[in-house]
Amino acid sequence: MAHAFKNCSNLMVTGASRGLGLQIVESLVTGGFSPGNIIATARNPDGAKELQMLAEEHQNIHIIKLDVTCQESIERAASEVERLVHEEGLNCLINNAGINVVANLETVTAHKMLENFHTNSVAPLMITKAMLPLLKRAAAKGTGTGMGIHRAAVINMTSLLGSVELYWGDRANTFKWYPYRTSKSALNMVTRCLAVDLEADGILCMALHPGWVRTDMGGPEAPLSPEESISCVLSVIGGLTEKDHGSFLHYTGEQLPW
Amino acid sequence: MAHAFKNCSNLMVTGASRGLGLQIVESLVTGGFSPGNIIATARNPDGAKELQMLAEEHQNIHIIKLDVTCQESIERAASEVERLVHEEGLNCLINNAGINVVANLETVTAHKMLENFHTNSVAPLMITKAMLPLLKRAAAKGTGTGMGIHRAAVINMTSLLGSVELYWGDRANTFKWYPYRTSKSALNMVTRCLAVDLEADGILCMALHPGWVRTDMGGPEAPLSPEESISCVLSVIGGLTEKDHGSFLHYTGEQLPW
Repeated sequence: MAHAFKNCSNLMVTGASRGLGLQIVESLVTGGFSPGNIIATARNPDGAKELQMLAEEHQNIHIIKLDVTCQESIERAASEVERLVHEEGLNCLINNAGINVVANLETVTAHKMLENFHTNSVAPLMITKAMLPLLKRAAAKGTGTGMGIHRAAVINMTSLLGSVELYWGDRANTFKWYPYRTSKSALNMVTRCLAVDLEADGILCMALHPGWVRTDMGGPEAPLSPEESISCVLSVIGGLTEKDHGSFLHYTGEQLPW
Repeated sequence: MAHAFKNCSNLMVTGASRGLGLQIVESLVTGGFSPGNIIATARNPDGAKELQMLAEEHQNIHIIKLDVTCQESIERAASEVERLVHEEGLNCLINNAGINVVANLETVTAHKMLENFHTNSVAPLMITKAMLPLLKRAAAKGTGTGMGIHRAAVINMTSLLGSVELYWGDRANTFKWYPYRTSKSALNMVTRCLAVDLEADGILCMALHPGWVRTDMGGPEAPLSPEESISCVLSVIGGLTEKDHGSFLHYTGEQLPW
């Protein structure tokens, strides 16, 4: 489904300095059907050496500074994105930036809970809100009917650990991560609420679990390489239609319980 | 099942100055099988006139000052509760204090999201953590086996609107409350994580939807009176057993989807 990105003129991905965000940019530009513009955000672009190297080789990569927890930074980024996408608008926003503030019952504090919630749940909402005029523009101008990245889509990178139903009992003992799990279930709710609000404009919104991946966050024990994960992730994103609106999907495309 | 409270020596309810919290206290002391001590917390006890009047008539009501978003206040309250419950410990903690920071996509801000999350999701976690030694004591000393308020239980007052699955599509249009819905789904996750951690000590933990009630928060259109809601809520709490551990129940006792 990677060829679906040929109908996606402008794509934005947050947290692109490393890990899955960087891999999304790399897989897209080397995949043969790269979007017209890839807007890659980083909190600190100067430190994002690998992303900078990619951007030097590929003119369609645009690096933008974005601190996802700062409203001023979000609004500044929205202005920059508007200048890049012009009348075409933004076809795909991938809210990928996220952190894992590891804490169990003994070590958890209110501050840790709020910090993880702000970055993982609130930021995707505030970024989507800021990009809404550009998403609407793309949805209205997009080729064809229905929903998908040929018009406009918001993809929230969530986690299986955000499922309240799954990882229960013995399975939960491995992941006693109060701030992270809570922030991802909150992100799933944000996704559902956004899906209701964006539907009238034909903007698709869904939550996607990229798998457990060997990144800085996932650690070396994880079964998937970033390439393997993002190959599947892009295939799922490329194939999204209105039936996936408001859904929570595994990177294999399987539907997950909330 | 109200008679089940005769096996509950010490019960604590937060946000007892009005609404459902006040009704819990009132229904318990007038129900004939009142717990030995009812610890009723309020952010501002001086302004809680109705609760004060109830406490003047019933010696087993103890009013404690508690600002649920302030760690110092939580720790001070925990010390006061310890002095009240002594060796018996705390049999039932009802995390009832909650707010609804109403905001739709247009009006939502990061601050509103964080405020609602702190009170509705983080506070129940931090309060449970502070009361844990007292809950463990009660669970260890409690009469009989299994789980329930005869030993120790944590009840998180959540909402049907915290279900990511329900209130979707047209039904969601009535309740475009980003901060509230997100905070309650996060509370459901906190409940599940706590249930995993408290199980080894025999402490039951679950999430309960009290219905849509005519309180300051529910408004005058709500179908249930506080008396009707709390009559059902106390019946559910009184009848909880190990099969309800980690569950999300309707005030009628029915299981709800996450």
